[in-house]
Amino acid sequence: MQPQNTPVAGTTGTTGGSGSLSYEQAGVNYDLIDPLKIAAQRAAAATAGHLAPHGFSEVAASRGESAYVVDVGPFYLASIVECLGTKTLVADEMARLTGKSWYDRIAQDTLAMAINDLITVGATPLLVQAYWAAGGSDWFGDTQRAQALVAGWKAACDRCGVAWGGGETPALAGIVEAGRIDLAAGCTGLVNPKERLSLGDKLGPGDAIVLLASSGIHANGLSLARKLVERLPQGYLTEIDPANHPGLTYGEALLAPTVLYSPVTEALWQAGITPHYCANITGHGWRKLLRHPGRFTYRIGTVPPVTPVLKFIQTLAGQDNNESYSTLNMGAGFAIFVAADQAEQTAAVARAQGIDAWVAGRVEEGPKRLLIEPLGIEYGAEDLQLR
Amino acid sequence: MQPQNTPVAGTTGTTGGSGSLSYEQAGVNYDLIDPLKIAAQRAAAATAGHLAPHGFSEVAASRGESAYVVDVGPFYLASIVECLGTKTLVADEMARLTGKSWYDRIAQDTLAMAINDLITVGATPLLVQAYWAAGGSDWFGDTQRAQALVAGWKAACDRCGVAWGGGETPALAGIVEAGRIDLAAGCTGLVNPKERLSLGDKLGPGDAIVLLASSGIHANGLSLARKLVERLPQGYLTEIDPANHPGLTYGEALLAPTVLYSPVTEALWQAGITPHYCANITGHGWRKLLRHPGRFTYRIGTVPPVTPVLKFIQTLAGQDNNESYSTLNMGAGFAIFVAADQAEQTAAVARAQGIDAWVAGRVEEGPKRLLIEPLGIEYGAEDLQLR
Repeated sequence: MQPQNTPVAGTTGTTGGSGSLSYEQAGVNYDLIDPLKIAAQRAAAATAGHLAPHGFSEVAASRGESAYVVDVGPFYLASIVECLGTKTLVADEMARLTGKSWYDRIAQDTLAMAINDLITVGATPLLVQAYWAAGGSDWFGDTQRAQALVAGWKAACDRCGVAWGGGETPALAGIVEAGRIDLAAGCTGLVNPKERLSLGDKLGPGDAIVLLASSGIHANGLSLARKLVERLPQGYLTEIDPANHPGLTYGEALLAPTVLYSPVTEALWQAGITPHYCANITGHGWRKLLRHPGRFTYRIGTVPPVTPVLKFIQTLAGQDNNESYSTLNMGAGFAIFVAADQAEQTAAVARAQGIDAWVAGRVEEGPKRLLIEPLGIEYGAEDLQLR
Repeated sequence: MQPQNTPVAGTTGTTGGSGSLSYEQAGVNYDLIDPLKIAAQRAAAATAGHLAPHGFSEVAASRGESAYVVDVGPFYLASIVECLGTKTLVADEMARLTGKSWYDRIAQDTLAMAINDLITVGATPLLVQAYWAAGGSDWFGDTQRAQALVAGWKAACDRCGVAWGGGETPALAGIVEAGRIDLAAGCTGLVNPKERLSLGDKLGPGDAIVLLASSGIHANGLSLARKLVERLPQGYLTEIDPANHPGLTYGEALLAPTVLYSPVTEALWQAGITPHYCANITGHGWRKLLRHPGRFTYRIGTVPPVTPVLKFIQTLAGQDNNESYSTLNMGAGFAIFVAADQAEQTAAVARAQGIDAWVAGRVEEGPKRLLIEPLGIEYGAEDLQLR
């Protein structure tokens, strides 16, 4: 099981004042999911030997990482299936309120969930499969919405240079709620040449941490974001920052599509830079910087500006920084760990792809912890138990 | 889009008497899905060129087939994501009636949907990904059910010799209905060596048609099967064939897990037999025998025995053979087209894997049609429009 969409229990930070709303309070109970996940992980690991008769083997270090990697000889094969989550509920409500479809953005979000995870292992995404499970045939009868989904999916494939192989469009009345759709994406890629593999053995003290900008909430923390709308008299149409972003509503800001990071990782390879490790900053917020299985201290000296919608959520939820950075991306959607002397170039390559980037910190010897010094935050190993 | 779970509109056969129930009447409206599928297929096809900068290319003939195939040099890569459909609704109701979980069988069904499609192109399935999207965290709190799902998934992987790479277990309250789960599987494999590719160019007049036994309804036609239960005073606990199968209830018979056919295709390769084409007999019933894009006549002289639950459904729905064979597998879950002089050995290889098999007919020159001679049925090209 890749755990990025189902954080383990008990890891969310402390809440703020009496009116604050934590991740668990927003409706997801990970205590109930975990025993199944552990059983599934054990059963899955026990199947690795099936590759041997074919002459192949799994890359065991990829278990627990964001994509599963198999050594097929001339290169590694990487694959993943990822769910969007509940962001469509915001799109549906915004469609009701604004009369337009937001599913072109939702399509990008869905593909980003799969592609941004796949690239963390060093893979080039090659092809994707669509999984669009609707609550009934009538979902597909809304032409504007359906065409937006197709157009957004195609555009995201074009942006990432992946082939759209096909997919499934089942109508699941009785399983998926009427009027809703369960969106997911499968992605398969290659680590080619094999030295691009970045499962963590290259990471070490002295490496730099480069953070890439997010566009907003991306596709994690939506349960919280949806719960918070109840506190807003104008709901999703509330302006989140009238002074600096007049007219930008909460709903529209939430629906900023997730940044696709594969153009950056591919451009890095072209530039001769092989990341030592990567982390997709999703469901655990910045605690994902602790994802590497080793024992290092991660010291952050530069904190990217907080995306307005995340600042708005933080304020509305009454969260302190400790809690917000532990669950939301707070402006940084992807982390690249590279040799220190390649850090500035890494950031420059990202910016050339239109994605802001910061050389934000460094890897050090020391106990497993993340220090966000400008904010006085420390997360320890006990704050992220993914495996 | 792979169309096997979403048959196109207007292709279902005529209905029988006034009490008969057709596929569309059971609640799936393909007219609404089709325009989206066509748009998606066109958009997807337009992304094929993205493989070229990586030095790869798609196998164009795989578009519209059951799995997407990419030429990555030393071998072909094949991938697919497949949905189970609504069979879980039967399992849920049977759990309520019997107090036991049926999700070990459901797990096999889900994997079979992906694996049985992947192998049609000649691929060896290598790894699978789980997609288990529940209506809420509490779904995973039913330990018996969750463990059955894990155990069944593991057992199916073991049976097919595939590695279980990981997966997703999201809780999607508000999208998936409370107490329900949306199950799907991703499967990636290799066509290796490349001459195993079976996208249809090898098929020709004189080839034999070998049919492999199904175990029951498999995972297609469940909407109809669930609708029919309303006609039964004892519902899912109705005995379907007291004389020959005392105690076998409608619900249990429906939940016979889908046969996994990859052990047969792998054993055929070991035996030196390369199928000229394969068809997974799913949503369109025997019309799937017309799946090959070419223009041939398929003449069936031997019809396998009808699985009792399918006979029961046919009678209950008041369907004639023409309709039943056009939507249900009627006892044959998979078709292998091979050189005539390898037909008997193909059937023997299948039987050695514990799956009954029949050399049922042959491919001939002539207009595109399927003749099921013992039943006086003829389906034409207009009865199956998959692409």
